[in-house]
Amino acid sequence: MPQPHYTQIIRELPSSVPFVGPEAQERARGGPFRARIGANESVFGPSPRTVEAIRAAAPDVWKYGDPDNYDLRQAIADFHGVGRDNVVIIEGIDGGLGLANRLVVEPGVNVITSDGAYPTFNFHVAACGGTLTKVPYRDDRQDIGGVLDHARNNNARVAYLTNPDNPMGGWWPGKDIENLISALPDDTLLLVDEAYIDTAPAEANFPIDASNPQVLRFRTFSKAYGMAGARIGYCIGEAGVITNFDKIRNHYGISRLSQIAAQAALEDQDYLRATVERISAACRRIADIGRANGLEPLPTATNFVALDCGRDGAYAKAIMEGLLARDIFVRMPGVAPLNRCIRISAGTDQDLDLLEAALPEVMRAVSA
Amino acid sequence: MPQPHYTQIIRELPSSVPFVGPEAQERARGGPFRARIGANESVFGPSPRTVEAIRAAAPDVWKYGDPDNYDLRQAIADFHGVGRDNVVIIEGIDGGLGLANRLVVEPGVNVITSDGAYPTFNFHVAACGGTLTKVPYRDDRQDIGGVLDHARNNNARVAYLTNPDNPMGGWWPGKDIENLISALPDDTLLLVDEAYIDTAPAEANFPIDASNPQVLRFRTFSKAYGMAGARIGYCIGEAGVITNFDKIRNHYGISRLSQIAAQAALEDQDYLRATVERISAACRRIADIGRANGLEPLPTATNFVALDCGRDGAYAKAIMEGLLARDIFVRMPGVAPLNRCIRISAGTDQDLDLLEAALPEVMRAVSA
Repeated sequence: MPQPHYTQIIRELPSSVPFVGPEAQERARGGPFRARIGANESVFGPSPRTVEAIRAAAPDVWKYGDPDNYDLRQAIADFHGVGRDNVVIIEGIDGGLGLANRLVVEPGVNVITSDGAYPTFNFHVAACGGTLTKVPYRDDRQDIGGVLDHARNNNARVAYLTNPDNPMGGWWPGKDIENLISALPDDTLLLVDEAYIDTAPAEANFPIDASNPQVLRFRTFSKAYGMAGARIGYCIGEAGVITNFDKIRNHYGISRLSQIAAQAALEDQDYLRATVERISAACRRIADIGRANGLEPLPTATNFVALDCGRDGAYAKAIMEGLLARDIFVRMPGVAPLNRCIRISAGTDQDLDLLEAALPEVMRAVSA
Repeated sequence: MPQPHYTQIIRELPSSVPFVGPEAQERARGGPFRARIGANESVFGPSPRTVEAIRAAAPDVWKYGDPDNYDLRQAIADFHGVGRDNVVIIEGIDGGLGLANRLVVEPGVNVITSDGAYPTFNFHVAACGGTLTKVPYRDDRQDIGGVLDHARNNNARVAYLTNPDNPMGGWWPGKDIENLISALPDDTLLLVDEAYIDTAPAEANFPIDASNPQVLRFRTFSKAYGMAGARIGYCIGEAGVITNFDKIRNHYGISRLSQIAAQAALEDQDYLRATVERISAACRRIADIGRANGLEPLPTATNFVALDCGRDGAYAKAIMEGLLARDIFVRMPGVAPLNRCIRISAGTDQDLDLLEAALPEVMRAVSA
């Protein structure tokens, strides 16, 4: 039968899945995981105020959400001391990265990221037909000097940084990123993915300059706020750039419940602070468990710990698979040399009890 | 300061807002509407089971939704007697129309719609750089023969139909659409937007042929299911076409709460049937109120009624504005000759009491 005449980009794109979900793994293995500590979610959950807000709003789900996201944008603007027109609400940072790429990336456009950084960014670049250059990590951090050099040399229209880092957990001081920004080529838009900024030390942050059209800052309610399933985040930038999102975004795309939930979450900063403490304690315990089993924890500013298994990717993969086989969902970086690590998200005490019990067995098995 | 180097499409796109939301109107007028019967939402709300499912799932919103939407896709597939791989979950039909356009529309590609049909479709075509031809309505229905002719003559890669019709409320028998499908040019993909199919007479529907790569059927939980604020719908098509959505969709983009809510809604067909009865009764009352005020109701297969005001767009607009000024949110078609009508969504008894009281005042004012 006649097939649709796809665009050139679609015809050339391979089928791809950015991340296999834990549910798909559970279906494949025929049973649930006992610990879900692989997707950098917050097992500590959302604020009780958020839960209450969702429950109260549930009967009103017949109403479309406000397509202007006015109240939430105003709350975020007030929180950050920027204007409402500097804020666009996005369906998680994933959704925002998709839109940002569509603003500036078309076939023939060069884009810079780091080799091993968040693969969903790469997915969106490919979906726009962009040409991606991946700068190797240096000392388990994104090489921001290398990113800048490549942006210059490749006439890149977009450069992507995550700070703190995923999948390695480290961070750059905000002032180093400010220095990079001041040296950006005129044609380069810098996307700063700050999904994990809420768990980071203060020095990793830097003031938001909403007058600079060359920088977009991406934040989310998916991580420390414990709302990954609500698919809501935001992007802050110069008003003229932010306005351009309106040309392509799905105006009615943000769930009404998620708008309301995010506003309740933002208002409960006490809960956020308490959660960050719990995440921090869990990460310290993961580090201890790793060390006790000969796996070296990398410093983390996030809600996860990368444990350096000390050998190659195959070895780390065997450890990861040993944990998966023991019903513990964890992940690992996809690219060498980062893939000598496994990545474990902050868990509840019970989650980490399971990890603590399983890891010695796994280490014995992989050493056998 | 240096500006981002936007794509050619973005540079050429005017700023646009597909639909101003009622919240924006409320902010502008400085107070809430008393009746929200303008956005074709279901004032009767979601199934109690849906509300309960949302409330039960709220504490688990820390988990990402399954990126495969497996359970919901399976439930929808079973419901329609197609395969799971014939179904993709979308962030409302709006989101699905955006993705479908991105699969096949690039600069230079011709697309056919009807003049006055759903403007968000046009928005997405523009965002892909497509060239849109709008076929005039004929006798207040989309001219499906004209759409077919234009698809042939313009070598169109996409043709868009809504059935039942928005904004006029009418419908084509499904067999007429099947005839159009059998005559489609090989290169044309037909998008059938069936947002209102749940309130339509059986003859408006036609069997889903999931083996045909030239047709995509769009359905939603936003209308009769009463879940507009959850942003969830689905598209059914041939498996190879559906797979291509994976190349560009936001894999983790569907809210976990919305997946769960939609599944609960689908399982409560008794509630859907009861709601459709209530919608039908409300539409009959809107028609009666219109007639009593000299406004002729058009036949409807949807959850709204287009009332023909009998003169030009300015006259209908004055009536709409009279209702808005009396705290009743309604809308009207944007294009002549459809804009001789106002469009009123099914409301509660209280909503329609307000309408019944206000409309005579409005008619006196516009006649004065």
